[in-house]
Amino acid sequence: MFLMLFVPGILLAKSASEAALPTSDSVSGRWVVNTDFYGATIYFRMELKQEGEKLSGNFDGDKLEGTLKGNTLYFLAKDEEGGTDEGKGTLEGGTITGTVVFTHLEDPAHPETHKFTAELVPPRRAGAAQHHEFVPTTFYRQFSAANKPVLTIAPGESVHTTTVDAGGKDEKGVTRVLGGNPETGPFYVETAAPGDTLVVHLTRVRLNRNWAGSDDFLVGRAVDSDLAVKMKDLGKSVRWRLDAEHGVATPEKPAEHLTRYSVPLRPMLGCVAVAPGPAQAPPGTGDSGRWGGNMDFNEIVEGATVYLPVNVPGALLYIGDGHALQGDGELNGNALETSMDVEFTVDVISGKGIPAPRVESDTHIMAMGLAGSLDDAFRGATANMAQWLTDGYKLTPSEVAQVLGTSAEYKVSEVADRNAGMVLKINKERLKALTPVAK
Amino acid sequence: MFLMLFVPGILLAKSASEAALPTSDSVSGRWVVNTDFYGATIYFRMELKQEGEKLSGNFDGDKLEGTLKGNTLYFLAKDEEGGTDEGKGTLEGGTITGTVVFTHLEDPAHPETHKFTAELVPPRRAGAAQHHEFVPTTFYRQFSAANKPVLTIAPGESVHTTTVDAGGKDEKGVTRVLGGNPETGPFYVETAAPGDTLVVHLTRVRLNRNWAGSDDFLVGRAVDSDLAVKMKDLGKSVRWRLDAEHGVATPEKPAEHLTRYSVPLRPMLGCVAVAPGPAQAPPGTGDSGRWGGNMDFNEIVEGATVYLPVNVPGALLYIGDGHALQGDGELNGNALETSMDVEFTVDVISGKGIPAPRVESDTHIMAMGLAGSLDDAFRGATANMAQWLTDGYKLTPSEVAQVLGTSAEYKVSEVADRNAGMVLKINKERLKALTPVAK
Amino acid sequence: MFLMLFVPGILLAKSASEAALPTSDSVSGRWVVNTDFYGATIYFRMELKQEGEKLSGNFDGDKLEGTLKGNTLYFLAKDEEGGTDEGKGTLEGGTITGTVVFTHLEDPAHPETHKFTAELVPPRRAGAAQHHEFVPTTFYRQFSAANKPVLTIAPGESVHTTTVDAGGKDEKGVTRVLGGNPETGPFYVETAAPGDTLVVHLTRVRLNRNWAGSDDFLVGRAVDSDLAVKMKDLGKSVRWRLDAEHGVATPEKPAEHLTRYSVPLRPMLGCVAVAPGPAQAPPGTGDSGRWGGNMDFNEIVEGATVYLPVNVPGALLYIGDGHALQGDGELNGNALETSMDVEFTVDVISGKGIPAPRVESDTHIMAMGLAGSLDDAFRGATANMAQWLTDGYKLTPSEVAQVLGTSAEYKVSEVADRNAGMVLKINKERLKALTPVAK
Amino acid sequence: MFLMLFVPGILLAKSASEAALPTSDSVSGRWVVNTDFYGATIYFRMELKQEGEKLSGNFDGDKLEGTLKGNTLYFLAKDEEGGTDEGKGTLEGGTITGTVVFTHLEDPAHPETHKFTAELVPPRRAGAAQHHEFVPTTFYRQFSAANKPVLTIAPGESVHTTTVDAGGKDEKGVTRVLGGNPETGPFYVETAAPGDTLVVHLTRVRLNRNWAGSDDFLVGRAVDSDLAVKMKDLGKSVRWRLDAEHGVATPEKPAEHLTRYSVPLRPMLGCVAVAPGPAQAPPGTGDSGRWGGNMDFNEIVEGATVYLPVNVPGALLYIGDGHALQGDGELNGNALETSMDVEFTVDVISGKGIPAPRVESDTHIMAMGLAGSLDDAFRGATANMAQWLTDGYKLTPSEVAQVLGTSAEYKVSEVADRNAGMVLKINKERLKALTPVAK
Repeated sequence: MFLMLFVPGILLAKSASEAALPTSDSVSGRWVVNTDFYGATIYFRMELKQEGEKLSGNFDGDKLEGTLKGNTLYFLAKDEEGGTDEGKGTLEGGTITGTVVFTHLEDPAHPETHKFTAELVPPRRAGAAQHHEFVPTTFYRQFSAANKPVLTIAPGESVHTTTVDAGGKDEKGVTRVLGGNPETGPFYVETAAPGDTLVVHLTRVRLNRNWAGSDDFLVGRAVDSDLAVKMKDLGKSVRWRLDAEHGVATPEKPAEHLTRYSVPLRPMLGCVAVAPGPAQAPPGTGDSGRWGGNMDFNEIVEGATVYLPVNVPGALLYIGDGHALQGDGELNGNALETSMDVEFTVDVISGKGIPAPRVESDTHIMAMGLAGSLDDAFRGATANMAQWLTDGYKLTPSEVAQVLGTSAEYKVSEVADRNAGMVLKINKERLKALTPVAK
Repeated sequence: MFLMLFVPGILLAKSASEAALPTSDSVSGRWVVNTDFYGATIYFRMELKQEGEKLSGNFDGDKLEGTLKGNTLYFLAKDEEGGTDEGKGTLEGGTITGTVVFTHLEDPAHPETHKFTAELVPPRRAGAAQHHEFVPTTFYRQFSAANKPVLTIAPGESVHTTTVDAGGKDEKGVTRVLGGNPETGPFYVETAAPGDTLVVHLTRVRLNRNWAGSDDFLVGRAVDSDLAVKMKDLGKSVRWRLDAEHGVATPEKPAEHLTRYSVPLRPMLGCVAVAPGPAQAPPGTGDSGRWGGNMDFNEIVEGATVYLPVNVPGALLYIGDGHALQGDGELNGNALETSMDVEFTVDVISGKGIPAPRVESDTHIMAMGLAGSLDDAFRGATANMAQWLTDGYKLTPSEVAQVLGTSAEYKVSEVADRNAGMVLKINKERLKALTPVAK
Repeated sequence: MFLMLFVPGILLAKSASEAALPTSDSVSGRWVVNTDFYGATIYFRMELKQEGEKLSGNFDGDKLEGTLKGNTLYFLAKDEEGGTDEGKGTLEGGTITGTVVFTHLEDPAHPETHKFTAELVPPRRAGAAQHHEFVPTTFYRQFSAANKPVLTIAPGESVHTTTVDAGGKDEKGVTRVLGGNPETGPFYVETAAPGDTLVVHLTRVRLNRNWAGSDDFLVGRAVDSDLAVKMKDLGKSVRWRLDAEHGVATPEKPAEHLTRYSVPLRPMLGCVAVAPGPAQAPPGTGDSGRWGGNMDFNEIVEGATVYLPVNVPGALLYIGDGHALQGDGELNGNALETSMDVEFTVDVISGKGIPAPRVESDTHIMAMGLAGSLDDAFRGATANMAQWLTDGYKLTPSEVAQVLGTSAEYKVSEVADRNAGMVLKINKERLKALTPVAK
Repeated sequence: MFLMLFVPGILLAKSASEAALPTSDSVSGRWVVNTDFYGATIYFRMELKQEGEKLSGNFDGDKLEGTLKGNTLYFLAKDEEGGTDEGKGTLEGGTITGTVVFTHLEDPAHPETHKFTAELVPPRRAGAAQHHEFVPTTFYRQFSAANKPVLTIAPGESVHTTTVDAGGKDEKGVTRVLGGNPETGPFYVETAAPGDTLVVHLTRVRLNRNWAGSDDFLVGRAVDSDLAVKMKDLGKSVRWRLDAEHGVATPEKPAEHLTRYSVPLRPMLGCVAVAPGPAQAPPGTGDSGRWGGNMDFNEIVEGATVYLPVNVPGALLYIGDGHALQGDGELNGNALETSMDVEFTVDVISGKGIPAPRVESDTHIMAMGLAGSLDDAFRGATANMAQWLTDGYKLTPSEVAQVLGTSAEYKVSEVADRNAGMVLKINKERLKALTPVAK
């Protein structure tokens, strides 16, 4: 069946009532239409342009025409195949309440009627961007659109906060919640609506304690049958000392041949997510998908920017699962798991979506592929980057192929969870010769 | 059935007779036993230590005892399960000629008798290492042990030569051979015997013409069904200008959005191979395996060292398929294919094998995995590196897991051929804290 | 981190209070221990044997000793490595309320203390098995342990009910719920406790309307890049007529070459599930796993028996997603989706778990593998069947290998969802020569 | 590079001179053009129609026009993009000898000139089909076009022969050749030319000795890391007694729980192959591909028909690797390996190729997919069957999708070799409603 966007209706009503103030004399603008499908919510985007009583624009991408007479609104949208979406409603206090009738070309005798409420996406706030200090007290174990936002922030604003480690322990070593990557958030980002892209720029990802937990296991995806036999007795915990001053991690009780072994610290966030679209049940915080999640990619470090597709009003940003450092693949199932001191700023790219998570560093653009095998993740990363080069630089398919063939850099992000991850990176030096499309 | 090592017997006889000179008064040393299995050759290694008439050592790893009376040799070797290898032969002109009887514990009533000839592996030559200038005239399209060596070289010696491009064109653009990665070689490396490791250090991998051929295709492994549809009309040739002075490649007739696009040159060899073991038919030069081959790994550049497991006497080294540069994966099926000016030195690590190809650069050790899917190649690379850390640094399984978990760097080498390739890299900085086993 | 079993505590309390009545004079029996981990529930099994004031048995498999003095209970359990679980509690009204302290050998200085309540698993009810007629009014879109059971049934009892189709339409064509495999249930099965196996025998899987919806799409997992291009314009709905009298389905408006095409009806259930364990977020009804779910296996038909591992008290059985028939793999994404008339009986195999879903027909035992690729699903099915032969017939690893090598039959169940499915079948004729372990 | 068809020129010349006799007064007919590419042979098909001095037809599928004046032949063929193939030659003794110039649109300034000889494909012989009794004395270990045919047979003719087992042992238990699936053949099939389809109908596949060799191993592709550990000590030989009278196989020395275990005999051929196309090196007899080979599919039994694409003149048919029976997947690496008594008839479908091997039984048509992973083999089988339904029944893509969605039956053929195999079967009952295209 077709993909749907929904969250429990109460959330949208609530958050929107705080933020959305339609201008007094016009319904022109971008609306989020919260539609009731047999008790479930599906979101549609609607763009309206009002000229006198006449309305134009689109409903879910289909060209729309309509009228606003007094507070009575009517619209008719047609898709290319000849199906129609016909809406009737009443505007009151900035909210449109009404019904929409979907008529499918394949089965015109059975139109479907659904109730809806629509809210205007608020304009971007003027004035100085605020900085927020946020001390988390609740930690969530699902990337759910039903969790109440802990803070509302505007595009351009920054948040300073902390995360607990994957096992639920905070910077003092106190267990705050059952493990499994409990998250800080969700943060409600004003103006973010389904179809937009959320931009999360990490300005600070630093250690806030001097130890990490890990183990000596090798995950099943990494071992062939011979190596499985050799590794059969592994699985014990390994605790690491984190020396921020010298920038290294060392095993607290090193084994015989690792007494001098140390690894440079490179603090990162294993999880950055938005609430996923309602076509799926709210995933656990060990999972990943086009909405981000537990990507365990060791280049999501201080200075990196993460792009995620928005699926619900406010985006609902989650962060968690800090690693003091991690080898590619997170081969032990755990990296060097630790709590973290984090600061980030958010922004919203309005009306432009992306197919899957993307990351940007000073030197590279990076497209992620997340799937049930490395082979599928590889294809996913390639498709994600091909789309980036097409949308961002107007390249033709042939040009995309030439750039990928000469400049692709692939690395494995993760093999420890249900999805494996691959990343396709392009050096920004190569992109300097291309002409970016304005955002 | 068990894995076997063989090449046509005539080759061994020929090359060995040139090189192998057993000392007059002893059979002590490392022997290659060329055994006739119903017309096919299988190699076994035999180590002999002579004290008077008494012989000790091993046959194919099984402990051996025996006698040498006059020129009549007898030995009996036993494996751990109780099977036996019993040999009788005559020493004449440095060659032992005889029969060996294999008795398997599972079927002791049916011993198998095979004729053999054995040759002593020659000692490493004393004196200054020679340099060879070699101008190729024949180019092979199979990595075969049956191809006559074009040159015999000793460990420590260097060769300066050239390779034609994947399509068979040389530095002047003249087609010399049908395409498909035709190879320069094979080079016979003295003292190399089955079970050894061949070391190929590339001291020069430079362009010798100013253009390369490529295309704008994307290989099937890289595209999901959506991207396949977008890319459906691709497949045309793209010729690149190679500007060695400025160190960049640019399309000769760039498409609209690529008029300023250029990529740094990074000349590499797509193929470095030894003749594979006789458990398999001689593979074509588009294939890869534990014997190396068409690995298309873009870090096999000037300065890199390639390690390959020796399967036949003399190793039989092939090189070819130069790329002016290549993105990870060789996504276009072709990289920037060009002829090449190459110099290398060889060495032999005696009596120590490796499970699959390895590469070393100034900064990293790199273990390759080559298999029918990226998932299997990933497991192969991991197992290869785990073995390296075990054999090279005496790490226990737990220690291997900890080092991999914190230091693994995975990249995709190639997805364009029958085998996909993944590489697991470890930064040498991390290894400085470990204690290497003497080679 | 280790795998955990939890459901919201309120459910267990509620259902258990209805069903569990400890005998007045003894705590001997099987207990489910509902433990509070920072607000989340984790289940443990505890077996107690009381002799006077002395208690023996096990806690989560670890040997336990303890005392019951008055209504004060104490126990200490030790695992093989030396870790301990120490419990103290008070017995009142059949419920033990207390705290348990976990001390891990690796970190003995930091024991963890958790509150718990424990309920006795009720004995199997005596008397005649009841038959239940159940008319569903609510349909769930997640396989969740938090959904309130719609009916409580005892082992041996049967239920007659209906399911809506994958799009939420019932036997009259009325949409009852948003699509995505909405489920009938959950049914609470008395005596089923974590670690048991639920047995669902389908005594009736019949059509209750005369049409099904499908389409002409081919899912991404089934097409290579060439076939993707050929199939690029597909995706339209296809409605099928279901002729129960003649036992065939035919397209309502057949395309040119399919005017005479018909397929035998073989009604099946795409979904049979129990609530999954709390190590994961409640999955959507399009997903599958060791708890069953949307397996889309076309041998789950009338007469088949499905085995699922119990993860929460009462098991919480869901059924849905009826197909009038389905080719292997569910290649169109949809099969012939229709509502269904279903009857089943349940049973519980106490204290014996299984690693993944299994199915039994008159002729075969069948072990499922569900994973992110067919290669991993293949390994999963093989491991599942190897365990079945080991546990069910006491075969040694060598004997398992010989039986699988000579008798394995593999088929693809599904490729349309996030997990692919493979099934390993063994003909029961082959098993007649083996000696089954008593259940 | 593009795919090429070649075999060493001597073979074609030889075999063709025996068979091809152009009619005295015309060159009309189907020609095989043996072209010299820098020492290698590439085949092209050419169809000529002569009317007086005027020639029409096609060269490698490109429309051709030309002249024959005396014994001087000229032709010019153009492809759709504007490239040309221009030939000049002399007809003498039924052979055309000359040169052909290929001009590529992309690089018109550099035409390529190659020498060729062309032979007419002989007409199908009239008269009664012969029966051949063939006693093999040589057994090949590569599916090579360079092996001398052991027998020339005409379409419609039958051959009765034997095969040795995978280890090289014949019906008397005598080892005739080194193991690894040594083959009987190759048989040269008259009129078979590149682009045709060879039809091999197996009229007899029977045991000719009373024992088979196997083992208790499980191949790496079948085991996950847990099962690998459980199976770590396996690998011993298991000998089976073959009881043709009762139609069962039993272990000669059964393990404790298998004393009553027996399996029905179902003799099959693990290998049926033609010589592969010259784009690849001659593969070993453990490999498989579009040319067939070691497919290890347990429905290639007496009564089955195998279809293979012809790549070289005469097709060069090989058979071998008999199994007394085999479970799906050949999980032990070996099936019940035995020698075999075989009879088959051959036929040629002229001018119609197939993308990969196909098999037909009384009840099913079956399309094979052979690739480096089960996921890729699955896609290969699907594409192969989609093509079969398109070419054989004129189905549109939408119709193909509907038939596959409702009628696909997938099974695993093999996981023991480099390629994994999947088979997509369609029951012939379903095909009765479709209209087959005349062969």
